[in-house]
Amino acid sequence: MNISALQSIALSVRSLTIDAIQKANSGHPGMPMGAAELGAYLYGVELTYNPRDPKWINRDRFVLSAGHGSMFIYSLLHMAGFDLSLDDIKAFRQVGSKCPGHPEYGLTPGVETTTGPLGQGIATAVGMAIAERKMASHFNKPGQEIIDHSIYVIAGDGCLMEGVASEACSLAGTLGLGNLIVYYDSNHISIDGSTNLAFTEDVGKRFEAYGWQVLRGSMYDFGQLASLTAEAKADKNRPTLVMLESVIGKGAPTKQGTSGVHGAPLGEEEARKAKEALGIPLDKPFWVAPEAYAYFESRRRELEGVYAAWQARFNAWKKANPELARELEVWLSGGAMSPLDLPAFKLGDKVATRTASGKCLGAIAAAWPNFIGGSADLTSPNVTQLPPNADGSPLVFTKDNPAGRYIHFGVREHGMAAIGNGIALYGGLRPFVATFLVFADYLRPALRLSALMGAPVIYILTHDSIFIGEDGPTHQPIEALAALRAIPNLKVLRPADAEETAVAWRIAMERLDGPTALVLTRQNLPVLEKADPDWPYTMALGAYVVRNPNRAPDVTLVASGSEVSLALAAADKVLAARPETAIRVVSVPDRQALYAAPEPVRDAILAPGSLVFVAEAGVAQGWERIAPPENIMSIERFGESGPGDKVAEHLGFTSDTFARMVLEKFTGR
Amino acid sequence: MNISALQSIALSVRSLTIDAIQKANSGHPGMPMGAAELGAYLYGVELTYNPRDPKWINRDRFVLSAGHGSMFIYSLLHMAGFDLSLDDIKAFRQVGSKCPGHPEYGLTPGVETTTGPLGQGIATAVGMAIAERKMASHFNKPGQEIIDHSIYVIAGDGCLMEGVASEACSLAGTLGLGNLIVYYDSNHISIDGSTNLAFTEDVGKRFEAYGWQVLRGSMYDFGQLASLTAEAKADKNRPTLVMLESVIGKGAPTKQGTSGVHGAPLGEEEARKAKEALGIPLDKPFWVAPEAYAYFESRRRELEGVYAAWQARFNAWKKANPELARELEVWLSGGAMSPLDLPAFKLGDKVATRTASGKCLGAIAAAWPNFIGGSADLTSPNVTQLPPNADGSPLVFTKDNPAGRYIHFGVREHGMAAIGNGIALYGGLRPFVATFLVFADYLRPALRLSALMGAPVIYILTHDSIFIGEDGPTHQPIEALAALRAIPNLKVLRPADAEETAVAWRIAMERLDGPTALVLTRQNLPVLEKADPDWPYTMALGAYVVRNPNRAPDVTLVASGSEVSLALAAADKVLAARPETAIRVVSVPDRQALYAAPEPVRDAILAPGSLVFVAEAGVAQGWERIAPPENIMSIERFGESGPGDKVAEHLGFTSDTFARMVLEKFTGR
Repeated sequence: MNISALQSIALSVRSLTIDAIQKANSGHPGMPMGAAELGAYLYGVELTYNPRDPKWINRDRFVLSAGHGSMFIYSLLHMAGFDLSLDDIKAFRQVGSKCPGHPEYGLTPGVETTTGPLGQGIATAVGMAIAERKMASHFNKPGQEIIDHSIYVIAGDGCLMEGVASEACSLAGTLGLGNLIVYYDSNHISIDGSTNLAFTEDVGKRFEAYGWQVLRGSMYDFGQLASLTAEAKADKNRPTLVMLESVIGKGAPTKQGTSGVHGAPLGEEEARKAKEALGIPLDKPFWVAPEAYAYFESRRRELEGVYAAWQARFNAWKKANPELARELEVWLSGGAMSPLDLPAFKLGDKVATRTASGKCLGAIAAAWPNFIGGSADLTSPNVTQLPPNADGSPLVFTKDNPAGRYIHFGVREHGMAAIGNGIALYGGLRPFVATFLVFADYLRPALRLSALMGAPVIYILTHDSIFIGEDGPTHQPIEALAALRAIPNLKVLRPADAEETAVAWRIAMERLDGPTALVLTRQNLPVLEKADPDWPYTMALGAYVVRNPNRAPDVTLVASGSEVSLALAAADKVLAARPETAIRVVSVPDRQALYAAPEPVRDAILAPGSLVFVAEAGVAQGWERIAPPENIMSIERFGESGPGDKVAEHLGFTSDTFARMVLEKFTGR
Repeated sequence: MNISALQSIALSVRSLTIDAIQKANSGHPGMPMGAAELGAYLYGVELTYNPRDPKWINRDRFVLSAGHGSMFIYSLLHMAGFDLSLDDIKAFRQVGSKCPGHPEYGLTPGVETTTGPLGQGIATAVGMAIAERKMASHFNKPGQEIIDHSIYVIAGDGCLMEGVASEACSLAGTLGLGNLIVYYDSNHISIDGSTNLAFTEDVGKRFEAYGWQVLRGSMYDFGQLASLTAEAKADKNRPTLVMLESVIGKGAPTKQGTSGVHGAPLGEEEARKAKEALGIPLDKPFWVAPEAYAYFESRRRELEGVYAAWQARFNAWKKANPELARELEVWLSGGAMSPLDLPAFKLGDKVATRTASGKCLGAIAAAWPNFIGGSADLTSPNVTQLPPNADGSPLVFTKDNPAGRYIHFGVREHGMAAIGNGIALYGGLRPFVATFLVFADYLRPALRLSALMGAPVIYILTHDSIFIGEDGPTHQPIEALAALRAIPNLKVLRPADAEETAVAWRIAMERLDGPTALVLTRQNLPVLEKADPDWPYTMALGAYVVRNPNRAPDVTLVASGSEVSLALAAADKVLAARPETAIRVVSVPDRQALYAAPEPVRDAILAPGSLVFVAEAGVAQGWERIAPPENIMSIERFGESGPGDKVAEHLGFTSDTFARMVLEKFTGR
């Protein structure tokens, strides 16, 4: 190792960090200054990457879980030769910059995942490690390892305090993810001050309890960084936590080691003094040591050699395994290997949409052999069991069976969703995760990141209303649909029957630029006859006509999911009372799509000349856009424990009530 | 110990569990049958309670964190003499029953908190343990301990896998909560099957790492239960985890020890066989062993003695400390000790609402000496630092200073909120918790329970929009307000300036039947002149008129929080272009209250004859109730990193845009 060059890199990280944050007058100098040596070691020595091909499938993945330290990764990506100029860094935290406040996936080459919300990065990295194992086991051939790299993470105290990290790391231990190395930047400082205030646990012991290898050393000893990393990589059966004693904001003469350096610019005087002490020229803002640039130039050439060697290996593999190579291409594209042959359902049959979803899984698993996922310990209630593998190989992804495709996440919704993000971001795989709809709250921060990053994770959310019955208000979603529909770039699909469920699955699988939530019932629903013959296509617009009168409708009943059947029953009751009424019934599996549809499309579906009524077993919020509040049958309170239909009666949420609402308003017209 | 009696109690728990679940054809027999002996020991020997005074302040608290095992606690409460009849148990899981699917706070005497969503119970219990310490340190006098009891929890594998439990238990270790005893019902089975699938960590070692005492034994040895519990209580400085090896569904001859017994009725045949094997009479459904009833009768007499002795102690204490006794009464009522003297602000001054909130804290802390809480490691950004104690005593709640009132929660939003619930439910204290608004997602499951239970926890949520600027989309709320407003019984207050913030605090402190979220800005806002002289009272109705024209308004601009200033600026711009326009500007700090207000009130505020426009720096969802979508200036995408005003400009979210929207529509009228 060229220690002097590595020192110059670390120095340059500090230089760029000080100046970028000073110029933006905003940012977090503590982490990059405190961990600069590790950055120098990782990008200068350890990591395999190609700045000209930042999506190279066999690159090492690096995740800055302590995302507030974004200048750490920007400095290093810049020096390492990624498409990130000094001007980009000078635009740190400005609108349109490649260097936003926290690292954002898709915006900056070399940034593997969006971090900042603490704990997410490390949990997402667990997903990447699972993905690497799976991809390697599927595509590597003896002597032809085209996928064989590691996942590197830097996490701080904040990340390790978060529950999502606990969940994912416990599972990582169970799964024996030896390809995962987490460096713990242990600087004993968080925003409120010393970690003694709130975080006195023995972190190393905790990770040992999870089944991790735990190593200890100093952040500022390059030899140690190298030997600890080698030790970490040598253990193929356990993830490793490398605990590094460090000083937050190292190099800031009066502020280092204090919480004052965590999240605020050093200030002009401290910045000047830091530069003086460190030997950074005062007259050269955004200075990078020439030795650092020179070192990375040679490092790049070295890495080009590694890349070329891999290309040769890859080409040989491709030649020897043409079918597998074609499969890899398809996997990486996100597309299906074979046409999707979704099950058909018989009109009138009663099928819960969770059950219909379960029936689709076989077809999806066949068309997408890269379909991988599982449930947070609700496999049977979520109906997410995948069919057995055709070749009889074991289905479950475990330490000993990385070729598996079903993951038992345990009761860890939040960790599960973050892992889903990691699998999706890794590339090549199509992840799904599952829990009850009401527990989408548990995983919401990771789901938000799926949406923000455009990660195509599929969320199977069953037990979608008070109709689940006896489990009571803790398990009955009321506000959940509204809360999900509020998230930008999340597609929320609530199918009304088994057939819609199959189409919803198709839509979800074809979506590659963001997450989809499939909101499904526990209770049986009849398979509906649909008036609109093109409904499987119209449905993609958000809504379609299920029942249509033979003249312009007087009344349009709008509903989603299980309430479409209820609306049809209500329509029958209205017709029984006033046979001359022209009633249309509309199913809205995707409200956001309907609202975003062109006005003529919306009008064609909603018949604006008619009186519109809405029924949904949850809060009305958002439906007021198409119907006045008094025309909406909703539930604005928490539910109750009892058989589903009894609860609905108790809450007055029935087809009778809905029919009465229509009749009263219609008669009064 | 009367082992035979305890056995008869355990047997009766199994009997009632089998029959109640069989009759409801729904429920979870595994936990109650597997842990019946612990229940017999706790209610029969260990716990101090008074069935006739279930709210007795010095009762032991028992939390069934594994809430799906609700028949466990119902059986025991019934036998122990609480107001819970056999008929109530026969109505298990029926609408209106005192025995809902999962234990619900407020519904069943003796149920201390609502559980079912896993991990919440144990985390809430940590809050109760903090509360006990605080109350004891404040009210006990040497030799006159009126508060000296323990918090008992039963948690299963599911609870211990959840991140929220990790967070709270780590903090419990730091805080040295020796009054907390958690029994781990270690039955090695979760819904998906063996815990080997997903949960192989060394749980005991993990809790040792947290700083807990960890003990081990068998669920089925009463002597061991007693000695382990004694050992747990003997350690005053550490919480204790008692790991009990158990068999899920013990007593079900073919299903015990399998996941099949976790969450489904035994079925008639298995139920019959279980009863035969256990010696439960087949011809007596809902049978309780006479010995069990008899034992509890004598146990009740014993506990009455304990209660009477406490009353005597309490009366002596009261006599010796009349002022303290009065204080206790006030604390328990939730009211203030002295009039609330909120700070005044000067019109036109620029103050961030987070700063205004910070300024209110001194007044609140003075009026409510039982005001206790803190932040998830964002004390300074949330501006939640409390003023120093008048007597110079240390402010922070720690292991050595249980009299403290400021809690450093660490980066543990979810654990924090659950702890807030525990403090609120304990009684006598007024808890607040704080984080960034965007991270309300992290604590949402606990917040939902605050709302469901009616627990008056105050959530301080700062950094409430894209106007936070540089931290970027990971930290900029977009959907957060809509998602919070969707939760029934959560009061969401988004004040428009410093004065509104003070009133919002008053409303929050006066609310005793549910949680309040105070949504606050990072950026400065002018203190506004208000047209409505009664605004501090009208504000409680959800909205009031900030600016009024001198005739009936043509246009009403509606906004919440920081957008009220923006609306006023837009009004100026509209007036500059069309001076004859009559513009009203309305502030809506509480949209749900406005929507729930009587129609005449709403009309008086919104001037339905006028064109209504809305501005809010988040999704429009829900505002469509008072304005058509094209009249709503909202943000329907994730934000961007940059200075706040630049981000707003980039997104077209400015007073210019808003004024243009009004002018275009108005001119077109």
